Amino acid sequence: MSSSDLAEWLTEAVDASMPLAKRLFNGIGRRTFTDPGYTRISYGEGEKLAHDMVTEEARALGLDCTTDVAGNLYMTLPGRDRSLPPWISGSHLDTVPHGGNYDGAAGALAALTALAALKHAGIEPARDVTAMGIRAEESSSWFTGHHGGHLGSRAALGLLWEDELETAIHIPTERTLREAIDAAGFNADAVRRGPPHLTKDNVRGFVELHIEQGPVLAHERLALGIVTSIRGTIRARESRCFGAYTHSGAVPHELRHDAVLATVELLGDLDRAWAEVREKGGDLVYTVGKLHTDVEMEGLSKVPGEARFTLDIRSQDSETLTSMRELVERRAAAIGQHRGVRFDLGRIARGEPAAMHPALRARLLEGTGALGIAAREIPCGAGHDAADFTRAGIPSAMVFVRNTNGSHNPDEHMEMADFREGVRLLAWFFAGAD
Amino acid sequence: MSSSDLAEWLTEAVDASMPLAKRLFNGIGRRTFTDPGYTRISYGEGEKLAHDMVTEEARALGLDCTTDVAGNLYMTLPGRDRSLPPWISGSHLDTVPHGGNYDGAAGALAALTALAALKHAGIEPARDVTAMGIRAEESSSWFTGHHGGHLGSRAALGLLWEDELETAIHIPTERTLREAIDAAGFNADAVRRGPPHLTKDNVRGFVELHIEQGPVLAHERLALGIVTSIRGTIRARESRCFGAYTHSGAVPHELRHDAVLATVELLGDLDRAWAEVREKGGDLVYTVGKLHTDVEMEGLSKVPGEARFTLDIRSQDSETLTSMRELVERRAAAIGQHRGVRFDLGRIARGEPAAMHPALRARLLEGTGALGIAAREIPCGAGHDAADFTRAGIPSAMVFVRNTNGSHNPDEHMEMADFREGVRLLAWFFAGAD
Repeated sequence: MSSSDLAEWLTEAVDASMPLAKRLFNGIGRRTFTDPGYTRISYGEGEKLAHDMVTEEARALGLDCTTDVAGNLYMTLPGRDRSLPPWISGSHLDTVPHGGNYDGAAGALAALTALAALKHAGIEPARDVTAMGIRAEESSSWFTGHHGGHLGSRAALGLLWEDELETAIHIPTERTLREAIDAAGFNADAVRRGPPHLTKDNVRGFVELHIEQGPVLAHERLALGIVTSIRGTIRARESRCFGAYTHSGAVPHELRHDAVLATVELLGDLDRAWAEVREKGGDLVYTVGKLHTDVEMEGLSKVPGEARFTLDIRSQDSETLTSMRELVERRAAAIGQHRGVRFDLGRIARGEPAAMHPALRARLLEGTGALGIAAREIPCGAGHDAADFTRAGIPSAMVFVRNTNGSHNPDEHMEMADFREGVRLLAWFFAGAD
Repeated sequence: MSSSDLAEWLTEAVDASMPLAKRLFNGIGRRTFTDPGYTRISYGEGEKLAHDMVTEEARALGLDCTTDVAGNLYMTLPGRDRSLPPWISGSHLDTVPHGGNYDGAAGALAALTALAALKHAGIEPARDVTAMGIRAEESSSWFTGHHGGHLGSRAALGLLWEDELETAIHIPTERTLREAIDAAGFNADAVRRGPPHLTKDNVRGFVELHIEQGPVLAHERLALGIVTSIRGTIRARESRCFGAYTHSGAVPHELRHDAVLATVELLGDLDRAWAEVREKGGDLVYTVGKLHTDVEMEGLSKVPGEARFTLDIRSQDSETLTSMRELVERRAAAIGQHRGVRFDLGRIARGEPAAMHPALRARLLEGTGALGIAAREIPCGAGHDAADFTRAGIPSAMVFVRNTNGSHNPDEHMEMADFREGVRLLAWFFAGAD
């Protein structure tokens, strides 16, 4: 079959399979709607309902359905050589509180719909392809205590910390993660003891489709994005600048210890550093989400003696993160000295960037060309399960689908026409992948 | 008598009069001490006690003691020609809550002690010299509602606003200013109806001694400062920047509306503008006392959609205030445009600078030379009654006395040796003034 014949053949099969996707979006959405928005609690009722409905459709398609000991769902279309490690594609089925219907159900349903299309087209892939429904990706919303997030995929990949089953606390039930996994009918002990369910030796690669959480694709009128890298982060949650309170009229600047103007200088320096990195083609975003003088001590006519702020710095490039961290510390020390204040940046947490696999990225980009889909390469700013697959050594890639109004809110909006393009790309990828 | 003989003669007389000053500082201090610090409420008990004790000592000296209809105290040493408008010197006898013992009692006691010294030295001034104990200078602390501050001197000078007797509310008693004046035994109706007690036609000039509220004199090891001008102010109490909240990882900078980085740029621009004015020899201080993101909406990983801040900009030069105000508005508009945010600066209140009278400044500076007192000219950043005398057209001057630890707190600290230098200067000034 020629390349364009294959594309046409697959497209017809995808269109024939779209009712499955719509049925699941509507069914899951209707049963997990909590005005405003959708709520599917990790290891809670809404997530279970979504897993159950997806499993039912997958079984009706004749896929082989299993779960791992942490409750992640696997729905497998057999390949020509069943002894080879499978491709996996999917995303999470939980949501933030009052979130949207598509983050991350779109990724699980796209994988399932692509398998339905392959089956409909009578295409047998070279090796098994598994659609995956992942647990507890929205752990920042549903778990407190000490944990590293993305608890479902990290449990499957053997990436949980030593005591994380005990130190991650499920907010809605006040259970430990261990108790939450057991209460959902799975086996936390096996998570702890067992070898990882997914490893670089038993998985060929992972492709995650997800709605874009930013406005870039909508802004550029593109249906899909092929993710280059999931940004790493440098985060300071409790930075402070200490100066001295004094009279705003009576004390000249050279005798002041002004915590706000020192902080303004530091934050302005970082803003310019961001722009320079960007001008040179580097990747960097920089956000000060919180900034406060002390409400107990502040006054219109008082030189401020303290300022508190947060830093959230992200880049695809580990060296950029390192140099930004060094810049923050160097400038804080220098500004502290010349302005007579003291910066205490507090604990700075670092997460490494996760570069998507070059061959998978190239192949997916090739697919958008073959299928005539308007697309571009795009960095990913937010965290996703695909970053954990990458950290576990599994070749991974991500496909973003255009989405307006951001995510993590009831107004996120993905067009079914764009979702269809994503499914076409996944089906094309797995039809041709070796 | 030669100049140096006069200086020596006056100094002996001042030293002989210092026990009066110490007696009053100790007596008033002991009876208005409220751990920590001193509390003399405007139109309240502590202020009354101070007025009563000062009056008693003035009567014992044989001075002519009167009050005006707002309760300000006048203690007069007759001059050679009693038909001429008198010199007045003094300051306020109230304090902020838990303030120090010297702000502003030092000014009233210095004037009284100088008159005692003139009397002791047998020097009869050319015209009457009146020591004044002013009411309610600390109105920002003790009055709420709508008022213009410095209620005692402004009442005497006929500068109260149309309805201020009703709209200024006395916090401790919840009375209107009218009721507070009447309750203290004075006559608010006469304040309202009558001609001003003090005018440029019936007062020769006003000299106010006050502790410095900043650290400049201590820093430069000088006992006294001769004030050049009382700074005017531009104040914005409720400025805001409106942007849009969004994901700090998923949204690139060029699509953000970041209220914090826009505010940082504006505040940084003003910081550099301050430095430029200063480098050119201009007078300017600039303070952002309050700066906040919205605690209800903010997040470490959210681009901030709002920032609130205050501006307190002061200068001796009216044109500098005007150009800074224009700069704030121009930069806010330009930054708003290029960063996709909107600044609402809110109401901007302006108070004009009050230049001290050139001839009085020159004469006082001459006095420090004649008396061998380490002194310099100095701008005044905070507000004082002398600014209101200036606004009423009365030639006015101020003498600052070195003070450590700032003012408006229990730790303010003036050495009696420095106070003595201030009294020497006042006595010298009135002995020679025509």
